[in-house]
Amino acid sequence: MRTQPLSATSYSFSSPITLLPFTHSLTVRPPPTFSLSFPVVVSRTLSTNSAKSSTLRLQATSSSSPSPMIEKETPETQKPPTFLRDTDGSTSSSTNSVRARFEKMIRDAQDSVCSAIETVDGGGKFKEDIWSRPGGGGGISRVLQDGAVWEKAGVNVSVVYGVMPPDAYRAAKPTENGDVKPGPVPFFAAGISSVLHPKNPFAPTLHFNYRYFETDAPKDAPGAPRQWWFGGGTDLTPAYIFEEDVKHFHMVQKSACDKFNSDFYPQFKKWCDDYFYIKHRGERRGLGGIFFDDLNAYDQEMLLSFATECANSVIPAYIPIIERRKDMPFTDRHKAWQQLRRGRYVEFNLVYDRGTTFGLKTGGRIESILVSLPLTARWEYDHQPEEGTEEWKLLDACINPKEWI
Amino acid sequence: MRTQPLSATSYSFSSPITLLPFTHSLTVRPPPTFSLSFPVVVSRTLSTNSAKSSTLRLQATSSSSPSPMIEKETPETQKPPTFLRDTDGSTSSSTNSVRARFEKMIRDAQDSVCSAIETVDGGGKFKEDIWSRPGGGGGISRVLQDGAVWEKAGVNVSVVYGVMPPDAYRAAKPTENGDVKPGPVPFFAAGISSVLHPKNPFAPTLHFNYRYFETDAPKDAPGAPRQWWFGGGTDLTPAYIFEEDVKHFHMVQKSACDKFNSDFYPQFKKWCDDYFYIKHRGERRGLGGIFFDDLNAYDQEMLLSFATECANSVIPAYIPIIERRKDMPFTDRHKAWQQLRRGRYVEFNLVYDRGTTFGLKTGGRIESILVSLPLTARWEYDHQPEEGTEEWKLLDACINPKEWI
Repeated sequence: MRTQPLSATSYSFSSPITLLPFTHSLTVRPPPTFSLSFPVVVSRTLSTNSAKSSTLRLQATSSSSPSPMIEKETPETQKPPTFLRDTDGSTSSSTNSVRARFEKMIRDAQDSVCSAIETVDGGGKFKEDIWSRPGGGGGISRVLQDGAVWEKAGVNVSVVYGVMPPDAYRAAKPTENGDVKPGPVPFFAAGISSVLHPKNPFAPTLHFNYRYFETDAPKDAPGAPRQWWFGGGTDLTPAYIFEEDVKHFHMVQKSACDKFNSDFYPQFKKWCDDYFYIKHRGERRGLGGIFFDDLNAYDQEMLLSFATECANSVIPAYIPIIERRKDMPFTDRHKAWQQLRRGRYVEFNLVYDRGTTFGLKTGGRIESILVSLPLTARWEYDHQPEEGTEEWKLLDACINPKEWI
Repeated sequence: MRTQPLSATSYSFSSPITLLPFTHSLTVRPPPTFSLSFPVVVSRTLSTNSAKSSTLRLQATSSSSPSPMIEKETPETQKPPTFLRDTDGSTSSSTNSVRARFEKMIRDAQDSVCSAIETVDGGGKFKEDIWSRPGGGGGISRVLQDGAVWEKAGVNVSVVYGVMPPDAYRAAKPTENGDVKPGPVPFFAAGISSVLHPKNPFAPTLHFNYRYFETDAPKDAPGAPRQWWFGGGTDLTPAYIFEEDVKHFHMVQKSACDKFNSDFYPQFKKWCDDYFYIKHRGERRGLGGIFFDDLNAYDQEMLLSFATECANSVIPAYIPIIERRKDMPFTDRHKAWQQLRRGRYVEFNLVYDRGTTFGLKTGGRIESILVSLPLTARWEYDHQPEEGTEEWKLLDACINPKEWI
């Protein structure tokens, strides 16, 4: 019953990148969240006239033409040992590369998080989609929908080999001689991205995302610098505040950070508050956590360990909260407020999230990108919680970020 | 219980305008839909510490600083006879200006549409918010929520005096001598904007919007040309196709167009299909209608009459459809499909609609801008209607726009 994506692509960082607010990067970098790492659907399959298949087959009569950089993506029935190119990770000499170890880490994290979610849910099972590209790269998307505890839980990993257009690269690193136009900049990206929306309005939504990037030198500018960096974060979005939950969540983030650098938690906590800001509302989408991007000013091995520690902290940070809240009785009022906050989540993701907006503009796999949206959301005109209520307290904390620990 | 917008503004067309796809304009123009016409909230009021008022008062600790062009907006308790500046429309010599007659037309249309909606709804009543600006301009927002027939119906009119930055003006109309920098370009805009979301999944959503713009010459370049233009449209977004409904709707649009120019309907029908395109889905949000912008290549009086005819066609185009569908029995499956289509509506409005995205970026009155969003919406992972079903037929018509008449 699923539409087969006909074609997919290596990533073309063309005009949309000029719309993105690259506020903290000196080098040209893809957006921080990881929706860009999914297959790119060029056109929908079709046969409005042939009624032989029960698969939906529809083709646009006036869709945009595919980019010349598009590479076809292939659904797979079995998970390969690695999505890396042969030269990257599947030979004995390269299995210790950062690329290979990062891929292993995110695939292990996907397994353990999905397993923990299924156990706590007690009913829902993840549906898995596997895909690859002929030129290398691929991913595993897993979605649990309408479970006992979660209304929608997506946990995706992917490995992407892409190319940045030279203009973007030039803008960041102008050559001494402005006339020399370097070629496209190959890049590698791997990441895990997840959003978990529970049903109970007292059980918070969780988002986490960890990713690793490398750029090669442009093909005709071999002297130009290669780059690598890490990005990611874990943040909590409740509809109601239970201080013990928020403190626990932030404490686990801080513990993970403190193992590596005592500056990390305060720095990445603030970065998180700044990033998940719904500017037109003047409020954050939730109660934060940690967020970082463009991280390369430290030892690479240390940062790989740090990202691993963060990914491994998701279960201890989140599951105890869910266990406490998943069966709490609630009223229609609680549910309606959760739905309004889910509306804010939609606003943030569609209007501001760099990964989502980039993915939509460049033709990323829509169902993977928008799995972050809640199953249901609500918008009431001019809704204002009454001062002093629990709803008001949540909104206050989203407007005025607090130090929780 | 409402937040008082502290400050509002005349419009500054600064950087966000460079993000907008001005594909069919030779002159610099504000975005076509009319969300930009509402008051601009600079910061949220607050008092987290003073618990004296039951009004929500919250202030951001780190909000963006107000633009120097911001002008404070004032809530009003009574509707003034006109929102035009004295020199524009309230003296006997100027009541026949296009500005004055357009304002009267949209206010009459607001009254008649709201009256028709309340009559058919039989239960819900519109809540009215009136506001003005000291320097001239203002508006009337009306929202009916959770009625018997409509879950959310917004009908807004406004009159705006704003200023475009000279850079935008220069980009469109370079002077012979590139060194001369003209001053800011004053503009006038008035419009009506409405979205009507019914409850019954067989009753379609309607959107309409009619607007009139004028620019003055830049203050220090009196020889530069003044401009005026009309924009607008009316379009239908059902979750299920009833051919008689869609044909009736398009026929009324065509009749309105044909009174003025036989090219209008085919031209504006296609423009509508092109504009309401959700690019990342490869589908339109609905079944179209008419849409036009930048319209000034005809007699001004004729276009004023045309816009009036279009606005007056809303009730005969829409109400008969609602009467037929509002009480039809439906199942959970029908409701879920309507909710999924509402999710697409949210995606279009937040990601693509120029008025909405412009309004959000420039700080327009959020509740007025986002009144276009449905009360409730839904996103299911990888939902694909089975071929040949009614859901599939709707999706097919959104992907492959049809000629309905």
